Parts: sequence; structure tokens; C-alpha cells
Amino acid sequence: MNISNNAPIGVIDSGVGGLTVVKEMMSFLPEEKIIYIGDDARCPYGPRSVEEVKRFTMEMALALSDMGIKMLVVACNTATAVALDDLRNRFPFPVLGVIEPGARAASQVSPTRRIVVLGTVGTIKSRAYEHAISAISAETVVYPLACPEFVPLVESGQYKQTDIRPIMKKTLEPIAHLDFDTAILGCTHYPLLHNHIQEQLPSGVTIVSSANETVKDVKRTLSELGIANNLVEHKKPIFYTTGGLGEFIEITSDWLKIENPDVRHLIL
Amino acid sequence: MNISNNAPIGVIDSGVGGLTVVKEMMSFLPEEKIIYIGDDARCPYGPRSVEEVKRFTMEMALALSDMGIKMLVVACNTATAVALDDLRNRFPFPVLGVIEPGARAASQVSPTRRIVVLGTVGTIKSRAYEHAISAISAETVVYPLACPEFVPLVESGQYKQTDIRPIMKKTLEPIAHLDFDTAILGCTHYPLLHNHIQEQLPSGVTIVSSANETVKDVKRTLSELGIANNLVEHKKPIFYTTGGLGEFIEITSDWLKIENPDVRHLIL
Repeated sequence: MNISNNAPIGVIDSGVGGLTVVKEMMSFLPEEKIIYIGDDARCPYGPRSVEEVKRFTMEMALALSDMGIKMLVVACNTATAVALDDLRNRFPFPVLGVIEPGARAASQVSPTRRIVVLGTVGTIKSRAYEHAISAISAETVVYPLACPEFVPLVESGQYKQTDIRPIMKKTLEPIAHLDFDTAILGCTHYPLLHNHIQEQLPSGVTIVSSANETVKDVKRTLSELGIANNLVEHKKPIFYTTGGLGEFIEITSDWLKIENPDVRHLIL
Repeated sequence: MNISNNAPIGVIDSGVGGLTVVKEMMSFLPEEKIIYIGDDARCPYGPRSVEEVKRFTMEMALALSDMGIKMLVVACNTATAVALDDLRNRFPFPVLGVIEPGARAASQVSPTRRIVVLGTVGTIKSRAYEHAISAISAETVVYPLACPEFVPLVESGQYKQTDIRPIMKKTLEPIAHLDFDTAILGCTHYPLLHNHIQEQLPSGVTIVSSANETVKDVKRTLSELGIANNLVEHKKPIFYTTGGLGEFIEITSDWLKIENPDVRHLIL
């Protein structure tokens, strides 16, 4: 590949959710340099039109392309669902999404082949998980549920401060009595609500986040292209947010266990 | 990716074994154009030195690079085990091997996590399957067995003409009383001996070939790079062999069900 091995990997998300993918990358690919953009100023993407999500996603990708990335990870399910093909056709570097890895992980762990997908309105409407799962295993039954309240709960920090059990219960009520063994967190913000979601689901249900599977794909593609970083030293990620720095720094420190994270403001 | 979507995919093997991968590609990626090189003149690679296998593999890859391929599939376990990193560092296109996909497939289907790997002396010596499997699941027990007689049985066509049961029984004797549930055909020639191998293994053992998993990786990487072929028409593969045309044409017609396969001679 005519791309420098030591170039950074770009990660984009509508806000802080994609940090779940960064966390796995820091653990499994510590030698890779990461540049993250969270579009907190325009978050959430879930209720937005396809055209808006495509445009915002392309703006972030262009900013990272200008910074010389060797690979782009779209760590946002809504953006993956609507913008992946455009990005792949536009840029010379590989572009990885989070939906296919999540669908694969869920298919692997679901013995009864009955899977719930929780996601934003945009992701659920796209039916991207249904398509990805049926490509892996046609006989799997998928129950999609849009949870429009969840991203604002995370981005506002409300999930840490107030009792969100009533809103969790109400949102997840439609699937409470369904027969399923696996639930996909089809939005990278949802792992921050993991315990709250688990509490509302029948016991024995396995919760799957795509972060881990996505990072396996990142590693495999770096290998296939011969562009893994060959300088063995731990790199500190750089974070850009289009929103306010305060909450972003707090979540980054808390979630990624980084002291003094390098968080910068970005205007798109 | 700065590579034409309509460029061919190169597939290389020490002989005819890699046709098992071509067969899966023709089925799952019918719109992709395939150029295959089988190094039948210098087959088998299994007993050769690492330096020889690296040199022969690089010669095939260079020939395909000159033909303008967009991706290289090393459909030979021996070559994958010793030459993959060199190829990935040398060429701008993605280079995929067959070992990691095979290890992954076996790990997925083995409930007791006890796996036999059958391969050439070169592949078994490299311990490449042990490394790949332990990276996926550290607690899996791997029993490797070198089967140096198998490739000559296939390349000579002897497996179709004579009773090879005695040689199969003798080769597989060392694993006959081991406790395992899955066997990896760790050489792309071995699927042609599938029924003979099955006959010698305890009933209930699952036989895994890496061809199917490898083609899933091919598809995923084409997507990630945005280089899948966008002309929807079935392409007829082109086959080069460094050896004689007769036997190669016969196996290609028989194995791939292609009438009048386009087989050409190549001097390396």
C-alpha cells in the first residue's frame, strides 16, 4: 500500500460513542496512533435525514483525510448505515464500519438465532442490521427497536446524575416479553448505558457491542495491506470535538482512563 | 483506493490446490475477474526450504502485479506460512492468506476446542496454525500432523486412479486415537482428498477447509477499500500453470465445472 505505516488511523462518531471503539483499539493496537473526531455540536445523528448524516460524515472524513490518515473507522452506526459506500468510493484508504462486525459477533453468540437490535431511529430505519445478519445467517430472526432517548441521555451526562430507570424501562418495554437470547447495542453510545440496559432485559440475554469485532477487522485489514505501525511505542490519541471541551474531556478521562487527554476543538 | 475496481484478483498456489479457493470465489464473487497461477512445475512446496518458497511465491506475485491485479490471494498454506509478510511489505495491493481464515473457521465450529491440523511439512514446521488459533482462543489444543504424501497423490492424479486407502490410513494413523472434534485441511490440495480423509477420521469429526472463510475475507476487504467490481457480468477466470497443460485442464474442468477452461502456460 502506498500509505505510510506510521500514519494515524482516523475514527469518527456523531459524539462520544465511538470512544468505545477507541478503547478497544488502545488495548489491542497500542502502537497505532489514533485521531478521533466527535461531532458533538450536531449530535445526535439518529433523527437526522440521510442527506444530513452523509454530509456531516463526509466533512469529518475530509478533515481526517487532510491529516493524512491511513484508514478510517466509522464508529457510528447511523453514519455506517447511510454513508459507508460514499466514503469507500471517495477515499483511497480503507473505510471500516461497525454494523457488519456487530452483526457477525451477535450471530456467533446467539444459540437460538433470535436477536434484538437496539439503535437510533436512523439506524433502525435503514434496516442495515437486518441485511447484515441475514447475509450471515438467513434463518435468524431480528427484532429491531429504536431508542431515540438513549443518545441524549449519554451526551448530556444525565445517565450519571439522575435515576434513568423509568426512561430505560419505558423505552425497552416493547421487547420485554419477546423470546430472544442476544441484544446488539447498535449504537456506539449505548455501551455507556450497558448496566442500565442489562437491568431491563431478561436474565441470560447476551449483550453484544461491535467495538471488539470492529477492532479485529481493523487489525486484519492493517495486516492484509501491510500498513500496521512498525514503531513499537504507545501513542496517545488526539481527540477533536465540534462541541464543548468540558464534558468531552470528562467522558474521555473517565471512560478511557487517560489522564489529561489531548482534546481539541474542531470547526467543521 | 487508487486501484481500478475492474482490475482482476490474483490467486497463487504451488499447483492446483488453490482452485478450491477459486471455486468459492466464482460462486460468491461471480462479478470478479480472476487470474490464477499454479506453480505445478515446482510443486510440491511443502518439503522445500523457506528461502525457495519465498522466492517462488514472489516470482508469481510479481507476474500478477505486472498484469495489474487489485488484490492477491495466497491460496497455498505453505506460501502463506512463510511469505505473507514479505508480499504485504512489497506490494501496494492487499495480500490475503489462507491460514488465519482456516484457523478462525475451525475455532468457530470446535465445541471441545481440540483441533487437528493436517498440512505439508513446511506448513506444520512453521507452526503458523498453532499461532493463529492461539491468537483466537488460547485454551484450544492443536494437534499438528505433516502429510507429505498427500500433495503428490493429488498433483499426479493418482488419487483418482488407484486405491489410496492404505497410504491414507498409514499417514493418518498417528491421530487415529486422539480426542478431537475438528480437522483443518491445512493445505489447499487436501479438499480433493476430502472423502478419503473423512473415511479415516473418527465419525463426528468436522472437516474444515479455509476456502470459504478466505473468500469472506476477500469480499470484506474489497468492500472496505471500495474496489469491488461494479460491472455485473460473470467473468471467466484465466489460469496459468508453470507445468503441463493436460492434467491442469482436466482438474480445472472436473473440479470447477468449467467447459474449455482458459489455461495457459507461464514461464517463471
